[in-house]
Amino acid sequence: MMTSAAAGPPVSGTLAPLPDCDRIIAPYLDAALAALDGPAPLLAGMARYHLGLVDAALEPLPPGGADRGKRIRPAVALLAAGAVGGDPATAAPLGAALELLHNFTLVHDDVQDESPTRRHRATVWRLWGIGQAINAGDALFAVAHLPLHHLVEVGADPRLTLRLLDAFDRMTVAIVQGQTLDLGFEGRSDVAPDDYLRTIEGKTAAIVRYAAWAGALLGGADEQRAERFAAFGLALGIGFQIRDDALGIWGAPEETGKAPADDIRRRKQSLPILLLRQRLDDAGRAELDALYAAPVVDATGVARVLELLDAAGVRHAIAAQVADHHDRARADLDAAAVPGPNPARDRLRALVDRLADRAG
Amino acid sequence: MMTSAAAGPPVSGTLAPLPDCDRIIAPYLDAALAALDGPAPLLAGMARYHLGLVDAALEPLPPGGADRGKRIRPAVALLAAGAVGGDPATAAPLGAALELLHNFTLVHDDVQDESPTRRHRATVWRLWGIGQAINAGDALFAVAHLPLHHLVEVGADPRLTLRLLDAFDRMTVAIVQGQTLDLGFEGRSDVAPDDYLRTIEGKTAAIVRYAAWAGALLGGADEQRAERFAAFGLALGIGFQIRDDALGIWGAPEETGKAPADDIRRRKQSLPILLLRQRLDDAGRAELDALYAAPVVDATGVARVLELLDAAGVRHAIAAQVADHHDRARADLDAAAVPGPNPARDRLRALVDRLADRAG
Repeated sequence: MMTSAAAGPPVSGTLAPLPDCDRIIAPYLDAALAALDGPAPLLAGMARYHLGLVDAALEPLPPGGADRGKRIRPAVALLAAGAVGGDPATAAPLGAALELLHNFTLVHDDVQDESPTRRHRATVWRLWGIGQAINAGDALFAVAHLPLHHLVEVGADPRLTLRLLDAFDRMTVAIVQGQTLDLGFEGRSDVAPDDYLRTIEGKTAAIVRYAAWAGALLGGADEQRAERFAAFGLALGIGFQIRDDALGIWGAPEETGKAPADDIRRRKQSLPILLLRQRLDDAGRAELDALYAAPVVDATGVARVLELLDAAGVRHAIAAQVADHHDRARADLDAAAVPGPNPARDRLRALVDRLADRAG
Repeated sequence: MMTSAAAGPPVSGTLAPLPDCDRIIAPYLDAALAALDGPAPLLAGMARYHLGLVDAALEPLPPGGADRGKRIRPAVALLAAGAVGGDPATAAPLGAALELLHNFTLVHDDVQDESPTRRHRATVWRLWGIGQAINAGDALFAVAHLPLHHLVEVGADPRLTLRLLDAFDRMTVAIVQGQTLDLGFEGRSDVAPDDYLRTIEGKTAAIVRYAAWAGALLGGADEQRAERFAAFGLALGIGFQIRDDALGIWGAPEETGKAPADDIRRRKQSLPILLLRQRLDDAGRAELDALYAAPVVDATGVARVLELLDAAGVRHAIAAQVADHHDRARADLDAAAVPGPNPARDRLRALVDRLADRAG
């Protein structure tokens, strides 16, 4: 998942490449999911299905049997704890909480976006209906809190734990605010790029920001260092989402698993399109509106939008924005991490590089 | 809302009839809702609309401008704290959290049940769509936690606070489990009364149980006394729901705000119907199945089902169950509360009496 990182003795603890993150958070994930076992086996079943642990018949899948997601958020939390000189394992409950929270938002997003597939499998609502998918998301959100209640047992101060819990729920509000704005954009043709960036801050970046900030605090960082980690997470999260928008238009199908320029075909109001609209003159905007009038844009239309994007220099502008956010993330990381040999910081830097280099 | 209660000096603090409960929890409710203000005004607006604070244009409503619900759960929490000798105000954040949590479940329930109205107004999903209603519920659930994080400021021990938070999320899991079972019952004709009682324990009683238990702990109760309050809340919650089922069939329309025997008309699988099915012979069950084959039961069919219920003695059996749960609630309350003059206990007893006497 992440390129193997630099030499030097570990600051504290050990954290080999990202797969180890899975192993470290697994007990907390399992314990949280076990809280769903009981009178309604379907509820626990839907949660485990979504997480890639069981199949649609709720039979267990072996590790690797299904895509369980990239687990970037817990990795950021654990590595932030390590990069400030703490033991990454102190952030293990936090990592599990973040992974559960992220997956709650995905289950509800899939209902809201009517997405038929997620990680190459049928979505929860398609298999069990909208009502039960709402339940599955609600349950994942509820149990996402449970690992955090046990931070005290791995040495966290009870008052810090309460502070992290409060920020956890406020961060969730930011995610839901982003989702509310995003749904409100549907069918509108007057969304400004800045409005869109605000939704990204909520929908995608708030959780990465929180992961880095809370991980740093659990690792023993002071307020100032933790704030710098928050800035790192925010830049990383925004860069990640803009890059994702670029992939939806210029990504190679073999990398994205989608049709070429699929976001144009589906008329997604992603950043490249919003920038294009801002740069076009009235005639160009009228042409774009006409192309976007049908529910799905045909191949000729897709080709024409790609031409317009090229002519307006949007691809270059987007690439520059992505590079800018990743540069900011690297600078914040260097300022925030403990100086000197620091493998956790090096792994975070490798993560930035890897995300910056995603095919497309 | 509650009959004015007995004499004697207050055990501690003052808590006049239930409307005071509103006043006591209001600052915590307002602060939690304020956390929703920000880039997506619709999100805070939907939450406040559902709570009866604003109209569909998101303009403020005066107190009494809309039905804000009975606020039974916070009242139980505050009165439990008072009935063990504590200051009811120490449970104010808990009361606000419970009211927000309850309303989160209602917003999602309305989507799942496709309910067009709630408290005589259009439901959130009908005004803003399913996607945004999911967001409104998620946001209410997130901010429901916020008041609890501040229990420490009103004197609660941080570790007790973490314990109450953990139980809060586990109680929510019980609610969602009940909802999952309930949705699973739709279209089935083989649901046993005991299965149904298990869904009631989750959907309705778990939160009342928690309110009484957590309120008692915040009021200073020891574990044993708190457990007795939990038993009180559980019995009260189950009795309340069974009574509600009875009202859905035999309630006077002017009291319920619904058509007579509306739950028969809508083919709701409530306890009276499940008991009836259990008591009928094969021929009777076949007749009931035939009557319930249409999406809505017509007036002749409703009259026939009422006859079958009478002939099978179901109304009497249901009334006996309701009385039994309320008797248990009274016994648990008397055992759990501080003996001697205790106005909070008296008010809880009046609440039991009032719920037991609900018209119908």
